[in-house]
Amino acid sequence: MDSLTPYQRKHKVTVIGSGNWGTAIAKIVAENTASNPAIFEKDVQMWVFEEKVEIPKDSPHYSSSSSLCQGPQNLTSVINATHENIKYLPGIALPPNLHANPSLEDAVKDSTILVFNLPHQFIIKTCEQIKGKILPYARGISCIKGVDVQEEGISLFSETIGKILGIYCGALSGANIASEVAQEKWSESSIAYDPPHLDSKAPTPNRSPSSSTVDVVHFEHRDVSGQFSRVKLQALPSEYPPIDHEVLKSLFHRPYFHIRVVSDVAGVSLGGALKNVVALAAGWVDGMGWGDNAKAAVMRVGLLEMVRFGERFFGATFEPRTFTEESAGVADLITSCSGGRNFRCAKLSVERKQPIEKIEETVLNGQKLQGTLTAIEVNSFLKKQGLEEEFPLLTAVYRILKGTMSVEDIPSYIER
Amino acid sequence: MDSLTPYQRKHKVTVIGSGNWGTAIAKIVAENTASNPAIFEKDVQMWVFEEKVEIPKDSPHYSSSSSLCQGPQNLTSVINATHENIKYLPGIALPPNLHANPSLEDAVKDSTILVFNLPHQFIIKTCEQIKGKILPYARGISCIKGVDVQEEGISLFSETIGKILGIYCGALSGANIASEVAQEKWSESSIAYDPPHLDSKAPTPNRSPSSSTVDVVHFEHRDVSGQFSRVKLQALPSEYPPIDHEVLKSLFHRPYFHIRVVSDVAGVSLGGALKNVVALAAGWVDGMGWGDNAKAAVMRVGLLEMVRFGERFFGATFEPRTFTEESAGVADLITSCSGGRNFRCAKLSVERKQPIEKIEETVLNGQKLQGTLTAIEVNSFLKKQGLEEEFPLLTAVYRILKGTMSVEDIPSYIER
Repeated sequence: MDSLTPYQRKHKVTVIGSGNWGTAIAKIVAENTASNPAIFEKDVQMWVFEEKVEIPKDSPHYSSSSSLCQGPQNLTSVINATHENIKYLPGIALPPNLHANPSLEDAVKDSTILVFNLPHQFIIKTCEQIKGKILPYARGISCIKGVDVQEEGISLFSETIGKILGIYCGALSGANIASEVAQEKWSESSIAYDPPHLDSKAPTPNRSPSSSTVDVVHFEHRDVSGQFSRVKLQALPSEYPPIDHEVLKSLFHRPYFHIRVVSDVAGVSLGGALKNVVALAAGWVDGMGWGDNAKAAVMRVGLLEMVRFGERFFGATFEPRTFTEESAGVADLITSCSGGRNFRCAKLSVERKQPIEKIEETVLNGQKLQGTLTAIEVNSFLKKQGLEEEFPLLTAVYRILKGTMSVEDIPSYIER
Repeated sequence: MDSLTPYQRKHKVTVIGSGNWGTAIAKIVAENTASNPAIFEKDVQMWVFEEKVEIPKDSPHYSSSSSLCQGPQNLTSVINATHENIKYLPGIALPPNLHANPSLEDAVKDSTILVFNLPHQFIIKTCEQIKGKILPYARGISCIKGVDVQEEGISLFSETIGKILGIYCGALSGANIASEVAQEKWSESSIAYDPPHLDSKAPTPNRSPSSSTVDVVHFEHRDVSGQFSRVKLQALPSEYPPIDHEVLKSLFHRPYFHIRVVSDVAGVSLGGALKNVVALAAGWVDGMGWGDNAKAAVMRVGLLEMVRFGERFFGATFEPRTFTEESAGVADLITSCSGGRNFRCAKLSVERKQPIEKIEETVLNGQKLQGTLTAIEVNSFLKKQGLEEEFPLLTAVYRILKGTMSVEDIPSYIER
């Protein structure tokens, strides 16, 4: 898409969330809106949960004469004055066209593209707060890692967002550590985006590209528990460039952040959850001193069970290649099994002969590992379905956590 | 297959080669012939290139009164007396039913299953020596890693063996380090075996299982350069249990050595060659300090180019899942990019700012890395085909080796 675009309007982009990953993604997005002026409005809003911060005396932004440095200040004011999120992404210069906004409603107003990047426990509350206050034809991208697994079923955060807001929402996930991406160390990521084809269902198929007809489709999603939920989805007015894979790539792809856009939202979302369970097994096996071959074997079996999980529970839309070929699959798994938290803590628990809860206490100050939580949730879901035996590695991880199986049993148990 | 087998004859197995990998595989095979007496003759022959060895004084086998310890002895005599290959696999007890044999012709005589495990430069000479002296209906398994890449085309070692001897030969490859397998540390491996279906082409389809009819098919192979070679293949007499995936699994699978049998000989063989090229790139990127995400990105792109390579040049028989799901693919790649020689030397070459030849001199005493040789061979092949651009990572590795590209260029070059 070049500057001779036939579209009268440009996309306004808002990033909802400003932790370290939220800010790193907002930096990328603002860099790209600036370099693609034909498609995007340059200014990007970033919603920041307001809090008080003080600029430390050793900060390059500190000046005893500046009013910003007289006691606690609003984080948004500091970000907008210094172009740095000194609390959650210190040391990283942010583009001047990225604007911190403490008002959620104001930040999302008139935006066609909403990027969600906040801790998953805040999703529902945040979406409820902006419901009905966003453009009805906005589109979302969820950068929230993982999925919500309950005994009854699995829901994707992108779907939770889409259902509450009545919009379509895709997902971004990959082998990414926020601080490394912020430092512009090269990495890759995957975006999954597959909205219903509104245009092909439009009543006036030959409408001109400048027509402002707004079309509506009913978008149905069948979740794992078998329930259908119906979302009335509005077509993007044709004054805007269509939000397609190419436009999303131009919003997220950077020379240091390579994006591949696929259609498999379930796969991209699931990868970020299940890899943490596999990383526990890899850490245990590595801790046993069984060598790189054994660790690679556990990763290979884990990858296969991830594929099987996707095929079994998201068969209609899931694409095995997401796991075997994309960053959100095999690459994220490799990274997590190299030096991720779950891997490291599991390895320590074998080396120190301590239960993983003890490692969580001593190494993570009592924070819970994502992998242990997911392993337990996934097991209660599989047990309810009577499918533990079909996923021996996922099941072994759960049983080892519960103390009813030992790491030595992994090879023979997953052999069956 | 249980002991109530209807077959009058059992398979005799010979392992050709006795280096560290050859001896480790011979140990496995002999353990399995002993535990599957209905299918295999218990005694396994291992051909040993005869040489003189001395039992060192600190060996548990040393005894000043033993004639075996009076000066240099034949390696075969020492192996058969001590049940240890003191030269190539010291410290590992070999099963007593494994017999070292210095005569190649005698070792292969009457064997229905020939396991080839010797350095690839000796394949042709060794096969020429036993041509016409083996059972005409014998079958082979090549454990020789990699493929033979020339400017004109690529040939699989299993095919070289099969063509010279007029037999069908499959392949075994995986994430395996000989010493770890010998110590019974758990790992996995892949066997590829896909002979033409002799029985379905037999002139007497209803022959009884005890019939001794020998059927013949003409087995054609089209190699990359477009040449057909025709092998007259004899059916296994029906007195023997058919050599199928199940029988091969019972010959190679152990509790510590998990085997999956597939049909894709090209994929299993190619994986072991191309992964070394990818490991060089992973080592360079790691040496740059770009982090685990960047390394995982290189591995992901490498895996995709391996798949593309297989599809493009072995499309008729190649199966992408071999690379994305089997030990000979993704697992072997992971192991090689974790601590393999190619990875470690490439990493050192960036850290020490020295060309890789210098690292080969200082770290490997002048031995050449497999990855550098393969990268050069693969490039001359791709160049001749005009296909360098379709394999940007493989091409980048070659150019970095030649000094016409730098490691910093990898992300932008493979992005195209």
